[in-house]
Amino acid sequence: MPMLIGIDVGGTNLRLGVVEIDAAGLAKPRLLEEMRFQADFSSLCKLHQQAPELAWQQILTTTANAIRTVASKYPEVSAVGIGFPGFIAPDNQQILQSPNLPGLRNVDLSKDLSALIGLPVITENDALAAAYGEYVMYPDRISNLIYVGLGTGVGGGLILNGQPFQGQHGVAMEVGHIIVQEGGRLCGCGNSGCMEQYASASGVAISYFEATQQRISAAEIASYAAQGDKAAIAAYAQAGKALAQTLAHILKVIDVTNIVLGGGMSAAWPLISPSFEERLSQDLIPALHGKLKLHISDMGDQAGIVGAAMLAFRSNN
Amino acid sequence: MPMLIGIDVGGTNLRLGVVEIDAAGLAKPRLLEEMRFQADFSSLCKLHQQAPELAWQQILTTTANAIRTVASKYPEVSAVGIGFPGFIAPDNQQILQSPNLPGLRNVDLSKDLSALIGLPVITENDALAAAYGEYVMYPDRISNLIYVGLGTGVGGGLILNGQPFQGQHGVAMEVGHIIVQEGGRLCGCGNSGCMEQYASASGVAISYFEATQQRISAAEIASYAAQGDKAAIAAYAQAGKALAQTLAHILKVIDVTNIVLGGGMSAAWPLISPSFEERLSQDLIPALHGKLKLHISDMGDQAGIVGAAMLAFRSNN
Repeated sequence: MPMLIGIDVGGTNLRLGVVEIDAAGLAKPRLLEEMRFQADFSSLCKLHQQAPELAWQQILTTTANAIRTVASKYPEVSAVGIGFPGFIAPDNQQILQSPNLPGLRNVDLSKDLSALIGLPVITENDALAAAYGEYVMYPDRISNLIYVGLGTGVGGGLILNGQPFQGQHGVAMEVGHIIVQEGGRLCGCGNSGCMEQYASASGVAISYFEATQQRISAAEIASYAAQGDKAAIAAYAQAGKALAQTLAHILKVIDVTNIVLGGGMSAAWPLISPSFEERLSQDLIPALHGKLKLHISDMGDQAGIVGAAMLAFRSNN
Repeated sequence: MPMLIGIDVGGTNLRLGVVEIDAAGLAKPRLLEEMRFQADFSSLCKLHQQAPELAWQQILTTTANAIRTVASKYPEVSAVGIGFPGFIAPDNQQILQSPNLPGLRNVDLSKDLSALIGLPVITENDALAAAYGEYVMYPDRISNLIYVGLGTGVGGGLILNGQPFQGQHGVAMEVGHIIVQEGGRLCGCGNSGCMEQYASASGVAISYFEATQQRISAAEIASYAAQGDKAAIAAYAQAGKALAQTLAHILKVIDVTNIVLGGGMSAAWPLISPSFEERLSQDLIPALHGKLKLHISDMGDQAGIVGAAMLAFRSNN
């Protein structure tokens, strides 16, 4: 049976998994093993921002070593798929830029890494890879899917007719930067009021800080909320509202039935859900009431790994 | 050479055109003749809202007679395409509902009209038909296009890989209802702050009325603006801002290079443009700066007619 490596590149670590695929395509892919490698690529890029080639060589070496570690155990592995946090050129897979890995521009991870490890490599935007992972693991057989991943930031991915949709410049579904609050919080993108300033883990932490002057993590805020802390509950309610506003915008553009909410924050769904439902029913185009299927992912980090592996399988078969 | 009839159904009239197509697909289609038939379908539907079957039979008769008038002159006509102001089921072309023609639900214009006139008929959403018309007439050879039509209301259409994109429930690109102003003007859709309340001809008239208490048309406001009337200039500036906010939202979802602005209001582009450009450069995702091609249509009403005809050609070939 075909075996692939899927990698999710983050700012602070590499998550890598070995995925086995039923060649007939009848069963869901299986994640045989998952590993996490410490790799502070974000700090590395900031350190070498004037000489990004240095950062790039270290990123390549670290990633190649991680792959070799795993591939030596699974010699059947035939290709590697990578979900990378950046804009990927749809035509040649070059990484055009990466907001979280500054300095990297027009680098070719697929080519450079393939030369090091001797296996085919494909590179895709990390959120789109996660969307594809959610798509292949979705309980029903569907063709179209909107994915919104709520993590430290917010990413999105769109599957149309079973194909990952990149957009003409690799920036489709940059939904974290949809503006939900005129003149709202400043965002790293240079704009203000972007939804990820409210609906991401960082956004929840900011909401809580604004109300209490306490700097604690979204996970801690969730546990406070569970104990009835009003500011904590309000911070998650604000996230739910921003997410609903954004989803209503998205659906007025692409009209897709199946929506998957994933990422680390989706575990706090019970805290997000009330304000989300209320605002979505308010903002949604009336013709879509009762037509949507919202699925809260339980794949967590694995969606990106499985999706990257399946994209590698897809492009080599 | 293949010849088709394209029809744009409006609330107050039918616009019908005869389109000739170069079968090899090398030249642009030619609009041989265009006719306008008075047909107050909107009032008709309101009058018979309790007995929509009556309105429907009159709509069919009026449309069939208009087609027969033209087809008798052009016996080569082989099919009819119709752009209809409503949500069209992507699978069977049924008209699910029509906000401007109340009462009509789940009616099959293609089937009923074809039975009357003895020609194949296809039905598509009017804005999507106009998008397809802009696509086939676009100066360059392109595959993807975002169309926003600024008229009495605001419609949108998306062409992906040369195909009209309907969405799973026929409501893709309902961009007139993207919310740009929290708690803003009430919209017919039941929501408030929808962009068409600011960026359409009606929206411009409301903006001007709010500032001056004068009820005049968008066309009159344009001529006042040309004479330096500040409230008139501001009304169009508000339209440009709302349009830019909406386009930035759209592009954060689908990332398409070519954008066509059409509809009657596009003639007032010089009045809309300054605030549009300013706000778009503010809201756009930075990676798209300098990457977009904005085309102000000069097709006017003809886009919907040509597009409908070409969709009929496409589905019968």
